[in-house]
Amino acid sequence: MDKNPKHIRIVDAMMAKDYFSQWLGIERLKDGEGSSVLRMTVRKEMVNGFGIAHGGITYSLADSALAFASNSQGRLAVSIETSISHTEKVREGDVLTAVAEEEILTHKIGNYRVTVKNQDGNVVGLFKGTVYRTGKEWDV
Amino acid sequence: MDKNPKHIRIVDAMMAKDYFSQWLGIERLKDGEGSSVLRMTVRKEMVNGFGIAHGGITYSLADSALAFASNSQGRLAVSIETSISHTEKVREGDVLTAVAEEEILTHKIGNYRVTVKNQDGNVVGLFKGTVYRTGKEWDV
Amino acid sequence: MDKNPKHIRIVDAMMAKDYFSQWLGIERLKDGEGSSVLRMTVRKEMVNGFGIAHGGITYSLADSALAFASNSQGRLAVSIETSISHTEKVREGDVLTAVAEEEILTHKIGNYRVTVKNQDGNVVGLFKGTVYRTGKEWDV
Amino acid sequence: MDKNPKHIRIVDAMMAKDYFSQWLGIERLKDGEGSSVLRMTVRKEMVNGFGIAHGGITYSLADSALAFASNSQGRLAVSIETSISHTEKVREGDVLTAVAEEEILTHKIGNYRVTVKNQDGNVVGLFKGTVYRTGKEWDV
Repeated sequence: MDKNPKHIRIVDAMMAKDYFSQWLGIERLKDGEGSSVLRMTVRKEMVNGFGIAHGGITYSLADSALAFASNSQGRLAVSIETSISHTEKVREGDVLTAVAEEEILTHKIGNYRVTVKNQDGNVVGLFKGTVYRTGKEWDV
Repeated sequence: MDKNPKHIRIVDAMMAKDYFSQWLGIERLKDGEGSSVLRMTVRKEMVNGFGIAHGGITYSLADSALAFASNSQGRLAVSIETSISHTEKVREGDVLTAVAEEEILTHKIGNYRVTVKNQDGNVVGLFKGTVYRTGKEWDV
Repeated sequence: MDKNPKHIRIVDAMMAKDYFSQWLGIERLKDGEGSSVLRMTVRKEMVNGFGIAHGGITYSLADSALAFASNSQGRLAVSIETSISHTEKVREGDVLTAVAEEEILTHKIGNYRVTVKNQDGNVVGLFKGTVYRTGKEWDV
Repeated sequence: MDKNPKHIRIVDAMMAKDYFSQWLGIERLKDGEGSSVLRMTVRKEMVNGFGIAHGGITYSLADSALAFASNSQGRLAVSIETSISHTEKVREGDVLTAVAEEEILTHKIGNYRVTVKNQDGNVVGLFKGTVYRTGKEWDV
């Protein structure tokens, strides 16, 4: 068995230079081919004027999961369109887990769904992302 | 003329506690009633694994503009659904300006559009946001 | 056991006056509380300039499923925001099945996901809908 | 001056086979290169269970405008992702006008915005569409 398969080397390479995901404190719980599970804890500096997590925090976690899931399939993929519904308040100290899954993969386009939950298992964000798959293979 | 009208006091109050917008380095260029113009500069710690700004950075700037524009109309407003298309790469050092404008305002729902451009005037993000307007008036 | 429970009476009442769903030839395969399964066959008059089903056909089927699923929960619900990705071509004669499921339900807002497949089980449309739940109960 | 320029011949060719747009009663008020203005009148058979126009009607009008605007630019373009907010009720007899405009055009991707208004000039639908531009030129 390959102890370090290509899809993991791709995400390793991405994460190594992804300073914003590092700032967010993102941990990779699971790297699949076409999927990703990420976790992070909400810190005080991530909060907005309502004393809850800025919408950009949940979005950013989901967007990292989209990037890892879609690029793990071997070709360089770039986000075209994303949307998110913020379904429950997120607070300082909450631990968020994002699960990204491929829904449809065609030659040029990939559709992914990312669900973000808090430590109680409540859904706090429903994210949908569409990527354009370039012709360029990852060389890692 | 009121030198400190309510819609500006609302955004002042929001921004004072919005630690994430502060971290982003967001400056308010213009506060309207139902509109907002914000600016920020992309720093190294905002970059992703491709060496370009993480999608969450442009989203976060636009989402702050949505929050300021929608709350400036007097009632507490919360985001229901947002979407963004990332239309051009954003690089470290780029100066981004977000312009949020109200499109439709009904009793319960507001629709806003946010356009994010770089220092060359090129559109880098097209954002659309829908908010739920609660019955609670801002008391500032 | 109630042979004609309220959530089915609601959808009966909606469908009776829903002339466009009737024109589409929509059949109700399953009415749940918060869910709906609908089926229709694509006819020649539903085709666009590319000789494939107009995007509005798949959208309309999914939107009917959203309306039935969200209203079946007892309160009158209206669509705020919907999106759809058309993931595979749909042709004249194709039989489409839409499955609508509740994702999150709060006091005021409901989020639903609708997946549309063809007769081969291939996904042709990924639809996401957000509704505003009014205070008005269905009286049927 | 070319009395029948290519961008108009493209839309002529599309409309001739677009049986659903014909069923909707769509009239082309203006064909631009990258834009489109369409009009239609809501008939009884387009109404849903609430006695107002089915969401699919406004969507379909906007989606036709997207198809015409994006293909008029010479290359065959297919919709990837679309979203619509239904901002005001549409009734039988209402006359809807959709204006589609290009927002961003890159080599592979186009972003369009379509605004749908009723006969009173009120916005009833805000639509956003993203297309993938194939390498195939229209030959008309």
